[in-house]
Amino acid sequence: MSENIFTFKPIGVIRSPFKEQKGTPIQPTADPHAKGNVEVFPQYEEGLKDLEGFERIILIYVFDRSCYEKLTVIPYLDTVPHGVFATRAPCRPNKIGISCVRLLKRDKNLLEIEGVDVLDGTPLLDIKPYVPQFDCFNDVRSGWVEGVSPQKKADKRFE
Amino acid sequence: MSENIFTFKPIGVIRSPFKEQKGTPIQPTADPHAKGNVEVFPQYEEGLKDLEGFERIILIYVFDRSCYEKLTVIPYLDTVPHGVFATRAPCRPNKIGISCVRLLKRDKNLLEIEGVDVLDGTPLLDIKPYVPQFDCFNDVRSGWVEGVSPQKKADKRFE
Repeated sequence: MSENIFTFKPIGVIRSPFKEQKGTPIQPTADPHAKGNVEVFPQYEEGLKDLEGFERIILIYVFDRSCYEKLTVIPYLDTVPHGVFATRAPCRPNKIGISCVRLLKRDKNLLEIEGVDVLDGTPLLDIKPYVPQFDCFNDVRSGWVEGVSPQKKADKRFE
Repeated sequence: MSENIFTFKPIGVIRSPFKEQKGTPIQPTADPHAKGNVEVFPQYEEGLKDLEGFERIILIYVFDRSCYEKLTVIPYLDTVPHGVFATRAPCRPNKIGISCVRLLKRDKNLLEIEGVDVLDGTPLLDIKPYVPQFDCFNDVRSGWVEGVSPQKKADKRFE
């Protein structure tokens, strides 16, 4: 099992106003009105049918400009180290990110989104509809994140 | 961009009572008490530090036993077709799944979880902490899922 390798190909690309990690919002909630676009490659357009019925969508993408791997990190939101799997930091063994953004509009294979928190040109691997009954859990314990100061923008620490 | 290929390696394996798709819960909410385990490979144990502070964790994994790709699917929860990106069906261009499960206990590199909804032996790619302020959006529109009958268990349609 540990020897298996899985290969994934981009199904599209995420366009955003953010050209570098420094200044990029930390999670869609940090700048809920940051506008962006998703260009799904035309050969996958058929798979988008009915996506426009969902107010939010989960983008699954590659942190393609975070080049190193660390198992212990000081995340943007804290000043003490944590295991990388207890954070959303990009320097993970598999550089997969998820963001739950607002879907404003679909025009064929192009999506207008709000709450974009990724770098311009980020390769997109998958889109899933956000379904509150599957995905929304209020008031669950959230470890070290509880009570940290709400830093809103990333810095350069994971470049 | 569209020519890039990304390779990912498992960081662990998910153990569950479910040996085949038929009968497996559809989402953790379908059988919130289904118990399972995550074995994170020992070389990644360091990355789990402080994960136990989180009540829920997001598992990112490979649908390794869903062999074909379809852009239009009739999902478990409906009788009419939708674009695959408007569903959580496994037969996606990139066979990546996400599940938000309850973390009961961590013992070194082993996690006890509840609400497991994947097949036994599923390769794990990443773990992220579930943070309500990033991940929980109440009462957002959820398209075709609104009002469907709550089928709880999968069948064989995506094998």
